[in-house]
Amino acid sequence: MVKIKRALLSVSDKTGIVELAKVLQDFDCKIISTGGTNKVLKEAGIKVTDIQNVTGNSEAFGGRMKTISFNIESALLFDREKDREEAKNLNIEPIDMVVCNLYPFAKVKKQNAGFETLVENIDIGGPTMIRAASKNFKYVVTIVDVKDYNTVSKEMIENNGSLSYETRFKMMRKAFNHTADYDALIATTMDEQAGKRSLRLAFTDGKKLRYGENSHQEGYFYREIGAKKSLANMKILHGKELSYNNLADIQSAVDSVKYLNRFGCAIIKHNNPCGLAEGDNQREVFQEAWNGDPISAFGSIIAFNKPVDLNTVEFLNLNNEKKRLRKFVEVIIAPEYTEDALEYLQFHKNLRVIEFDPQESKQNFEIKYLSGSLLMQDCDEKLYDKLENVTEEQINLVSEKELIEFGIKAMRQVKSNSIIIVRESGINSLQLLGMGAGQPNRLISTKLAIKKARENMKKEFDFFVQKTEINSDGHWELYEKDQFSKSILVSDAFFPFADNIELAAESGIRKIIQPGGSIKDKAVIKKCNELGVAMVFTGIRHFKH
Amino acid sequence: MVKIKRALLSVSDKTGIVELAKVLQDFDCKIISTGGTNKVLKEAGIKVTDIQNVTGNSEAFGGRMKTISFNIESALLFDREKDREEAKNLNIEPIDMVVCNLYPFAKVKKQNAGFETLVENIDIGGPTMIRAASKNFKYVVTIVDVKDYNTVSKEMIENNGSLSYETRFKMMRKAFNHTADYDALIATTMDEQAGKRSLRLAFTDGKKLRYGENSHQEGYFYREIGAKKSLANMKILHGKELSYNNLADIQSAVDSVKYLNRFGCAIIKHNNPCGLAEGDNQREVFQEAWNGDPISAFGSIIAFNKPVDLNTVEFLNLNNEKKRLRKFVEVIIAPEYTEDALEYLQFHKNLRVIEFDPQESKQNFEIKYLSGSLLMQDCDEKLYDKLENVTEEQINLVSEKELIEFGIKAMRQVKSNSIIIVRESGINSLQLLGMGAGQPNRLISTKLAIKKARENMKKEFDFFVQKTEINSDGHWELYEKDQFSKSILVSDAFFPFADNIELAAESGIRKIIQPGGSIKDKAVIKKCNELGVAMVFTGIRHFKH
Repeated sequence: MVKIKRALLSVSDKTGIVELAKVLQDFDCKIISTGGTNKVLKEAGIKVTDIQNVTGNSEAFGGRMKTISFNIESALLFDREKDREEAKNLNIEPIDMVVCNLYPFAKVKKQNAGFETLVENIDIGGPTMIRAASKNFKYVVTIVDVKDYNTVSKEMIENNGSLSYETRFKMMRKAFNHTADYDALIATTMDEQAGKRSLRLAFTDGKKLRYGENSHQEGYFYREIGAKKSLANMKILHGKELSYNNLADIQSAVDSVKYLNRFGCAIIKHNNPCGLAEGDNQREVFQEAWNGDPISAFGSIIAFNKPVDLNTVEFLNLNNEKKRLRKFVEVIIAPEYTEDALEYLQFHKNLRVIEFDPQESKQNFEIKYLSGSLLMQDCDEKLYDKLENVTEEQINLVSEKELIEFGIKAMRQVKSNSIIIVRESGINSLQLLGMGAGQPNRLISTKLAIKKARENMKKEFDFFVQKTEINSDGHWELYEKDQFSKSILVSDAFFPFADNIELAAESGIRKIIQPGGSIKDKAVIKKCNELGVAMVFTGIRHFKH
Repeated sequence: MVKIKRALLSVSDKTGIVELAKVLQDFDCKIISTGGTNKVLKEAGIKVTDIQNVTGNSEAFGGRMKTISFNIESALLFDREKDREEAKNLNIEPIDMVVCNLYPFAKVKKQNAGFETLVENIDIGGPTMIRAASKNFKYVVTIVDVKDYNTVSKEMIENNGSLSYETRFKMMRKAFNHTADYDALIATTMDEQAGKRSLRLAFTDGKKLRYGENSHQEGYFYREIGAKKSLANMKILHGKELSYNNLADIQSAVDSVKYLNRFGCAIIKHNNPCGLAEGDNQREVFQEAWNGDPISAFGSIIAFNKPVDLNTVEFLNLNNEKKRLRKFVEVIIAPEYTEDALEYLQFHKNLRVIEFDPQESKQNFEIKYLSGSLLMQDCDEKLYDKLENVTEEQINLVSEKELIEFGIKAMRQVKSNSIIIVRESGINSLQLLGMGAGQPNRLISTKLAIKKARENMKKEFDFFVQKTEINSDGHWELYEKDQFSKSILVSDAFFPFADNIELAAESGIRKIIQPGGSIKDKAVIKKCNELGVAMVFTGIRHFKH
């Protein structure tokens, strides 16, 4: 424990400084302070020594020289054991606490200050004090964050004016993180001013995961320093530890539902949404997302964009006597759960239940880390530039707008080449019916999407037939044609040839959304006209790799 | 221009300091210096003022106090115009140059120094000088890198002892980047010492790309600060600017070939290798990689692991009169090109020709940036834990080892769920014959891989028939069975059910490599035994998303 006998207070943000000084004074701690801080403390009736009496120099050069001096830095830096005699001989009296926040470089930057103002707001004396005191944390405590005043005051009160090693070490680490952040911002800002781009990213609270993408890889999860919206804010309400792959999939899951307006549900497998639905009834939406790929949905990661109730999660059949009828999933994410829903989900011991609002997920940019280098880009937030009918047959852009937008949102989350098929299903809900992901050849993505859509339609047809016991002869073909004709096929990039159109038309698809922009657009449009297909150009490609 | 009349030299690394001081002396620049630097300079016959004569204080507290003083920092910080009078009154004489490198915190850290040594190696005086001088760069130059001594000396010689604004500004930016790096390392190291993980990444030389993954996204490419092996080191020998997607694909391309021992070639489309081959003849290897997916290969990114000659690149047919016979690709990467190969490649105006050795690509880790957070992991470098025959039929682990390892290397680069089929082809070369990538359902990946392999075999069969004009009746089925039986199917993760085995066996595949580890392993092995399939477990999963 170190008794705080002498403290140096020099803050640009005066919040809470008087209260802290009062605590210090109560323990007979002498207070040294600089210009503005001095004034505030004196007005509050606190006894302060002006820093000039310690430095031996007046404030000089328009405030550029206030604290830096042999006396102040010695008082912070000298070893209280080894250097005791030397300090005495040099008349250096120890300072045990530095409370300092730096010139508000970040703030003036945000206010788009000019170059001169930016430079003037580079603090020199502050970081010197902070770094000196922190280096000597064995004897000195450094406080750089207003939020720490309370805990420090409390600890002093509990310990008759002393602070523990743990606190001093913690504050020291905070201080070096603070000066690192400060100089990072100065460095990137000055580079920017010179027309150079540099980038500094900082993460903390690293948590070792059981392993990385695979068990022979180590994996870690960090929180970004300063990020208010963060996946790291999620609350695990139930279930075992999240894995590396879970976390990556959770991001895809929340991204898949966060842009949906009504009840939304996304089902993620291997980082792609294999199920997605939006509608007015959450239980129905869950069911329709699930039916997008009921095989892959087993072991998936599922996100909802609205609070979840019991009726919805009962779809999982977790307490069914027949184990094979229970739907096993890895993770469920929702902004909230009703009490009974949460209780129900706990039927499954291993299921991770996460409380997190997809709206609280925000990336300022996307990055891809390469060998000794980095790609960075804006997030893909724009849906389309235009919706333009380019064929003789037309898509009704008013009545179909919701489905078109849902389709683009679904396609945008699927890895390229991505082709998806969406339809209106059930009572006014929208469903991802089939998706083709990650293929080097667009034609194969189209085939995959159509095949999956057909499979899903066949399943629902068979279910209907079984239930009604009608004679199904010939009806399947009719049902298939009808469903495909009402669906929309969405492509993430333009079609380089007309073969995709032929394939889609053959299955009965009559509506296609794609960016356009190929040199073969004319041939593609011609093929649509030949085959009676309506096609809309959006003007925007949505690659995602 | 600022004439350098007085310089402060204080370096822990003494390299080149004497030469620099001599230049300074030639221009009658007064030199102030600290302990060790002082000694070296004096021994070289250079006139130096000891810093104590400027600070007015002796070095104190075991060297913790050397430079920090009102006098030194004032001499660096005061405004040469506004504060001229004040400085004169305070007897402050300007210092126009600081040459300083910091206590070698990084070095002692690398040497696994203990906590006390680490803390002792936190430099306080150095950063103070550097930051003060840099803030006042309008009048002062700061040199923190030995590599800059030469350029600065040269500029002084050219300008009669003066340095330009550009140089001072540049050095100032370098200095703040340096202190930012320095405190970043201290912060993360101290966190580490407290059992906390933090992570700070720094990138520079950011280049604005035409756009990001899509044209409505802004995109940038940065070099990692301090990275020796970097994709940013590549040389563009020919062709237009690289795009965001090109750069991401180049990483996949070099990763795909860097682990191959003989001539290797990878063909990348949408971040997956759709073609990969290894062998003794580069031209043949190129051809076999291409034939892995000759449709997707158009517009692809291609990497070689060895210097490329004319014979190899002539496979592209770039100067063929018939335009449709020319093979258009986006990017070619190789460690070197023969002169005639490079000349040949320039037949295509837009083709980017990149000189880069895949061996010069190294990632220390992989990261995935999520909302306000980050996933970090080791790279997936290990091929397998074991090669264990688990079925009655056995794979010869000696004669087939090369093909097995090639297969795992190919599979490891393909997005999950990934199933690939490889075979020995041509004269002792290995080929990726079919791949299924990025599917939520493993069965579909298997189907895709088999389908592509069959397509490729059919093409070569038809070509052979056409060439030889033999009667092909019934021969195709024989050829297909024969080729499949010699191929190996590799899965990135275990098979959860036996259905994949049935599918593979049905097509004629007789050899399967997979990690094993499913609760259904027994059933899967039983199915292999029933169907006469040999299966080897590797013990290692290779997810890649």
